[in-house]
Amino acid sequence: MTTTKTGKKKQPKAKATSKFSKKRGKAPGTVTYVGTREKQVAEVQIVAYNEQEQRSYKPHTLEEIINFKKSGHISWIDIAGLSDEQYIEQLGKQLNLNPLILEDTVNVNQRPKIDEYDDYIFGVFKMLYLDKNDKIVTEHMAMVLVEDAVLVFQEEPLDDVFDGVRERIRTKTGRVRFAGADYLFFALLDAIVDNYFIILESIQEQIEGLEEEVYDNPVPDVAKRIQALKKEVMRLRRLIFPVREMIVRLIETENPLIKKETKLFLRDVLDHATEINETLQIYREMSMSLMEMYMSNMSNKMNEVMKVLTIMASIFIPLTFIAGIYGMNFDHMPELHTENGYFVVWGVMISLFVGMLFYFKRKGWL
Amino acid sequence: MTTTKTGKKKQPKAKATSKFSKKRGKAPGTVTYVGTREKQVAEVQIVAYNEQEQRSYKPHTLEEIINFKKSGHISWIDIAGLSDEQYIEQLGKQLNLNPLILEDTVNVNQRPKIDEYDDYIFGVFKMLYLDKNDKIVTEHMAMVLVEDAVLVFQEEPLDDVFDGVRERIRTKTGRVRFAGADYLFFALLDAIVDNYFIILESIQEQIEGLEEEVYDNPVPDVAKRIQALKKEVMRLRRLIFPVREMIVRLIETENPLIKKETKLFLRDVLDHATEINETLQIYREMSMSLMEMYMSNMSNKMNEVMKVLTIMASIFIPLTFIAGIYGMNFDHMPELHTENGYFVVWGVMISLFVGMLFYFKRKGWL
Amino acid sequence: MTTTKTGKKKQPKAKATSKFSKKRGKAPGTVTYVGTREKQVAEVQIVAYNEQEQRSYKPHTLEEIINFKKSGHISWIDIAGLSDEQYIEQLGKQLNLNPLILEDTVNVNQRPKIDEYDDYIFGVFKMLYLDKNDKIVTEHMAMVLVEDAVLVFQEEPLDDVFDGVRERIRTKTGRVRFAGADYLFFALLDAIVDNYFIILESIQEQIEGLEEEVYDNPVPDVAKRIQALKKEVMRLRRLIFPVREMIVRLIETENPLIKKETKLFLRDVLDHATEINETLQIYREMSMSLMEMYMSNMSNKMNEVMKVLTIMASIFIPLTFIAGIYGMNFDHMPELHTENGYFVVWGVMISLFVGMLFYFKRKGWL
Amino acid sequence: MTTTKTGKKKQPKAKATSKFSKKRGKAPGTVTYVGTREKQVAEVQIVAYNEQEQRSYKPHTLEEIINFKKSGHISWIDIAGLSDEQYIEQLGKQLNLNPLILEDTVNVNQRPKIDEYDDYIFGVFKMLYLDKNDKIVTEHMAMVLVEDAVLVFQEEPLDDVFDGVRERIRTKTGRVRFAGADYLFFALLDAIVDNYFIILESIQEQIEGLEEEVYDNPVPDVAKRIQALKKEVMRLRRLIFPVREMIVRLIETENPLIKKETKLFLRDVLDHATEINETLQIYREMSMSLMEMYMSNMSNKMNEVMKVLTIMASIFIPLTFIAGIYGMNFDHMPELHTENGYFVVWGVMISLFVGMLFYFKRKGWL
Amino acid sequence: MTTTKTGKKKQPKAKATSKFSKKRGKAPGTVTYVGTREKQVAEVQIVAYNEQEQRSYKPHTLEEIINFKKSGHISWIDIAGLSDEQYIEQLGKQLNLNPLILEDTVNVNQRPKIDEYDDYIFGVFKMLYLDKNDKIVTEHMAMVLVEDAVLVFQEEPLDDVFDGVRERIRTKTGRVRFAGADYLFFALLDAIVDNYFIILESIQEQIEGLEEEVYDNPVPDVAKRIQALKKEVMRLRRLIFPVREMIVRLIETENPLIKKETKLFLRDVLDHATEINETLQIYREMSMSLMEMYMSNMSNKMNEVMKVLTIMASIFIPLTFIAGIYGMNFDHMPELHTENGYFVVWGVMISLFVGMLFYFKRKGWL
Repeated sequence: MTTTKTGKKKQPKAKATSKFSKKRGKAPGTVTYVGTREKQVAEVQIVAYNEQEQRSYKPHTLEEIINFKKSGHISWIDIAGLSDEQYIEQLGKQLNLNPLILEDTVNVNQRPKIDEYDDYIFGVFKMLYLDKNDKIVTEHMAMVLVEDAVLVFQEEPLDDVFDGVRERIRTKTGRVRFAGADYLFFALLDAIVDNYFIILESIQEQIEGLEEEVYDNPVPDVAKRIQALKKEVMRLRRLIFPVREMIVRLIETENPLIKKETKLFLRDVLDHATEINETLQIYREMSMSLMEMYMSNMSNKMNEVMKVLTIMASIFIPLTFIAGIYGMNFDHMPELHTENGYFVVWGVMISLFVGMLFYFKRKGWL
Repeated sequence: MTTTKTGKKKQPKAKATSKFSKKRGKAPGTVTYVGTREKQVAEVQIVAYNEQEQRSYKPHTLEEIINFKKSGHISWIDIAGLSDEQYIEQLGKQLNLNPLILEDTVNVNQRPKIDEYDDYIFGVFKMLYLDKNDKIVTEHMAMVLVEDAVLVFQEEPLDDVFDGVRERIRTKTGRVRFAGADYLFFALLDAIVDNYFIILESIQEQIEGLEEEVYDNPVPDVAKRIQALKKEVMRLRRLIFPVREMIVRLIETENPLIKKETKLFLRDVLDHATEINETLQIYREMSMSLMEMYMSNMSNKMNEVMKVLTIMASIFIPLTFIAGIYGMNFDHMPELHTENGYFVVWGVMISLFVGMLFYFKRKGWL
Repeated sequence: MTTTKTGKKKQPKAKATSKFSKKRGKAPGTVTYVGTREKQVAEVQIVAYNEQEQRSYKPHTLEEIINFKKSGHISWIDIAGLSDEQYIEQLGKQLNLNPLILEDTVNVNQRPKIDEYDDYIFGVFKMLYLDKNDKIVTEHMAMVLVEDAVLVFQEEPLDDVFDGVRERIRTKTGRVRFAGADYLFFALLDAIVDNYFIILESIQEQIEGLEEEVYDNPVPDVAKRIQALKKEVMRLRRLIFPVREMIVRLIETENPLIKKETKLFLRDVLDHATEINETLQIYREMSMSLMEMYMSNMSNKMNEVMKVLTIMASIFIPLTFIAGIYGMNFDHMPELHTENGYFVVWGVMISLFVGMLFYFKRKGWL
Repeated sequence: MTTTKTGKKKQPKAKATSKFSKKRGKAPGTVTYVGTREKQVAEVQIVAYNEQEQRSYKPHTLEEIINFKKSGHISWIDIAGLSDEQYIEQLGKQLNLNPLILEDTVNVNQRPKIDEYDDYIFGVFKMLYLDKNDKIVTEHMAMVLVEDAVLVFQEEPLDDVFDGVRERIRTKTGRVRFAGADYLFFALLDAIVDNYFIILESIQEQIEGLEEEVYDNPVPDVAKRIQALKKEVMRLRRLIFPVREMIVRLIETENPLIKKETKLFLRDVLDHATEINETLQIYREMSMSLMEMYMSNMSNKMNEVMKVLTIMASIFIPLTFIAGIYGMNFDHMPELHTENGYFVVWGVMISLFVGMLFYFKRKGWL
Repeated sequence: MTTTKTGKKKQPKAKATSKFSKKRGKAPGTVTYVGTREKQVAEVQIVAYNEQEQRSYKPHTLEEIINFKKSGHISWIDIAGLSDEQYIEQLGKQLNLNPLILEDTVNVNQRPKIDEYDDYIFGVFKMLYLDKNDKIVTEHMAMVLVEDAVLVFQEEPLDDVFDGVRERIRTKTGRVRFAGADYLFFALLDAIVDNYFIILESIQEQIEGLEEEVYDNPVPDVAKRIQALKKEVMRLRRLIFPVREMIVRLIETENPLIKKETKLFLRDVLDHATEINETLQIYREMSMSLMEMYMSNMSNKMNEVMKVLTIMASIFIPLTFIAGIYGMNFDHMPELHTENGYFVVWGVMISLFVGMLFYFKRKGWL
């Protein structure tokens, strides 16, 4: 039994090590992917558009990417596959990006943040969505806003979170085709934040499900799941909470990359982020209440159990005593020899029984 | 049974989807009503007044509404029916309102907020009132303060919250007929905030009711209702808390739309908002105490149950033992053959019984 | 039973309505008394003094009051009876006071606050004192500092809180006769705050009393009283907490009505207010500890009950079993026919009994 | 019993009155000692030193004290005995100290604070030390930094807290003989704060002691002592917490009485004060954990008790039932007349007994 | 038993004394080592490097150390052995360091802090690492950044935390050989902070281990270990939390010793420090949840115990009563003499037994 436990204890160590330790001791600015997805070649997709036209293509060389600068289009460059460290490092060099940024781009443990540089604004976000089994999937991503382009780095090529934006560019819906790269940056950020609401819904469903089970069937497994939910909410808060502060910084920045018109729209995302944070706060309190409720229902069950025991014992122990009395073998026990003694005793016992029932009824225990 | 549970689990999903997801993927600035009230044509009512005269009428065209600008009156334009998205969009275009504002106007999930623009001040509020069954009804509403007019957008045409203001305009009571549109804005805000007190009263009643029940009859249902109350207070805090901060911003704004005289009055609403927030805070703590009280009363009941069991068992188990002794069938048991053995045993048992009673009495268990 | 409960539920509604709703729908600035004291004519008392002389009299007309401006004295004008709304409204008009101030003066629900105007400083306070039965009485009051005078509005004419100040004016003790109206304002404020200490003492007594009872006799009623105490402390915090912030504002104001010398004294009251707030905070934590203690003592009692039960049952159930064995009627039970069987069984049972006692002793349950 | 309780209730009232009420109603600036030490004549001790020489003497007249100004020495004037109000009032007058300061000097309820005046800096501190029985003693003290001197007012003449400083002056150790009065002020403050660590040690010992007892022997008295500890920590926080803020103010002051070099040293005391506050915070959390631990150990004990009861009852009640069966007196009970019935029954009972033991063993209850 | 307890109580006193009291009463600036490691001679190691070359050597005299100033290299001077107070004091004097700094350098109780002086920046940190038994070791260390050199003071000469930096200097990896002393300072700080992640991993493992045990086997020892974990997390927070604030100060300083380029890198460490603090916060909440979980599982076990008792007692007590009835010795008990009475009673008892089982099954207790 000890071996199994030790075995279990070692396992998380291994996992933890992979999470924190891969980069330890390396020089700052080293581009090391520390995520769990398997190694793959980066896949690049460019959407270039202006008011007149838009096209989407896969570039074959780095140069093709860099060329966006002179194209007269707004370019949305999507690089999927953060494990391709070399590719990302080269691309970064070509675009004059700070190595620290590239490091954060591939570091899936990096918390959400905004860093402003002279020529670009760098943001790390967590894309959250539900997989087919309604599990919450966390995807690390980074966005770089440069003049006339937004670079998006993500772990997986597939991504329906941005489909709405892609569609709006293609169909010339809304403002995106008429605005600059900063509006695209906003639109993508807006899509990410909007998706958080789906996650909140999923949490709310879980809370509501647990609420019902707490009342109907407070088994230990429910407590376990409440605790798991609390941990999930804690984890989400950590991934989502910083976003609000980041948007505030984008709104307050004096960096010319973000135009005044776009800030009005950022204020709108800010509202959403604020609402999400408040909702998470409420979920936190609700999951605490769930545990409280669980404990109170447990006490309840205990009370019920105790009542059954008390009623059974209180009724039958005295009756058994009476029966015991007349089971004694004394030579001289006058009652034993009376004609109706036995029936009188039955009468007494039935009266006691009924009296007890009545007493417990009045106490509200029945 | 599994099917039912799954069924229940799906239901909230549907509901949640309707709450959060209707707008997902759409371009910002899209005017989409996401509330639960049924579709209806917007109903407009205008109250136009100045010091000399006042009149109330229903305009038939959009132009009739827009004309307020040159009328020399202060106009209170009430638009009821947020589901009429097209109408609101057209009206907004005519008045040069930002599409983002119109989006927030019909988005019933929008949290309360104040947005200042150059020519107008936009506020989202939650009107709270009790329906016939004393349930708290939440109505989303938006107010736009422009020069010489206040536009009020609400979900339902019927609305007695503003009746007092309407009356004061009609009867020339108070200051409203002598002041500008900013005072009207304040008066409406004041009416909304004043109504929050009614909601607080209703919560207080619920708390007091539950308090009594916790003492008299701490059944599990009471715990369930305490938790529901906690959730309700959380929900109200979320709808009401931002209002205080919004009023502070109105007082501190340098926007000429709000005159200095009116700020004195806003300070007064600020007092009310502060009091409401403090009261909500206290209700929060009180609902937590309720749960604590419930748990302590449950323990109490348990103690009582245990005492009954202990007293019954402690008294009768030893007596039954004694009876058991003299029910044994040994050939040589001298006591059985004494003249008064039986009565001596009775004596012993009665002494024990009385001794036990006395002992429990002294312990305070009886 | 339902009817009674409904009846009880309605009652608080009525009360709550009288608290919050009397003023609803009225124009701001309407002077409406919402307190519970019965209607009475305002009683006015003026103390006028300067370094040379002092006199105290009851003015008969409003004019007599207004005349203080040219009297060359510092005047302390005490108006008792907030239900006399008309009188207060007229007085306010004569003195050019803002109607909003008069509204707050008679609104007993108004929370403590300081409002500065150009010519006067207005403060709302709560006077707290113990009545004959040591119940805490809350009296709403307002003070207006104008040049050369302080107006004091209170609900009841009798008021020993200010007796010390009155005495010091009469006997020329301390600095009050040599200083201006701002010092009088300070002295009255100081008297109010000093009285809060009496309230704290009363709370401390209650806490200490409950502490003892929690240890000696943790009956449910004690829990009920702890909860009531918690509510009382919450209520007091709400009435007293703002005072500290108000004094800070008086110290930091640049209003010439408050002279620099007086601010030194205000710093002293500030110390007291800080101490009171800290003490209230501690009382809050102590009342929470009380509940915790109560719960732990309840568990204790339960433990004790369970021990008695367990000891009684563990000792006598096995013994009864043994007696039961030899009460069986098998034809062939050799032990029954031995000479000393009965006494051997007694021996066994006594050994078991003593062994059990010893076992429980060693476990520390006896 | 009621009389005793009333008696007990009265006692704290008396105490509280002496704490809060002695000064009530008096004019601000009245010098009234409100401590509990008995009246005594103030004892004055002067240590005068400069780089060349140092001497210590007891002055006989007030003038002798005042003369320090022209002596060319740094003077440390120690006045012990705050109950000698007259002496302190006269001394204050001679030194031109504000009466409010003198009031706070003798007011042992005054919380720690720093007040800056043009010519002097006034500080109130709490000296904390352990008496012979390791009880924490609180001594109120005040320090006034004037040019070339520090006045120290304390309740008791004996005071080993400052012995280190005295020694350093005498032996010319460290920097004190080479620096000004502000350094002396710092050195004394440093000594006071250093002594707080001794108090922390004592608290830590208590926590560790209680921790052990909670595990070994969670009797109700332990809970009582945990609560007492919590209260003691609360009390200490109140006395010690403000000191950190006070030192910050001394560091940030622009008052020339405190030189720039001395501020470096004050930063050092600040570190200590910060550490003390953090430690107190941790002790607070630890004392809360203690209570939690106590509750969990109580539950534990209860579980253990219940297990004993359940095992005993579950084993012997069925056995007793079997014995009861064969104690019935039916005419036709075939088993009774078999040869080995009795022994078969014994066999069944022993099997049941062993089976039960095995079952409970497997459940981990044995 | 009392003696042992007293003995235990004395022990922590001794320890605490060694922690806090060694320095009490000494003049500020006295260099006194208060750690627990044994006295040893300081061991010095210098790494000197510039873009062209690097060498590592052990200097033999103090002068050899001081010479770094004119060497044209960046020097990393590592002094191990804080107990060698004299050596450190002399070195400090030679380098013109403030005695207060030297005091903090050897004071292992000093909390982390940054102090800026004109010519140098002084920082105190806690190096945390796991020893061979996975225990967390805390090592006090200080770093001084002067022009062209970083002095590192540590308790132990061995130290693999900095091995990565040493390696990067030797192999000319990363930026360190091309940058100044401020970058070296950053690189060392980065190494320290990176190592904190290892500690976090170890804590996480403990939490996960305890989580499993809480579910599988909630024995009192688990509660004890949860409390120990809580204390450990508290201790770590105290050592680690200030670091974030310190880095913020380094980033915001205008001291020319830290160049603008280096601040970009410090921002990176800041991210890590923020993440560590957030993680510690989460661990804190998780350890609280653990205790909650433990309590709920205890209640669970209790419920289970009670159910067994209730089922056993409820089934067999009535049956025993029936057997008792027919064990009575009345002369006239008709049932006893019927042919099948015995078997009818068996039938009744078996029905009762089955009925009870069914009842408990339906209640979900089986």
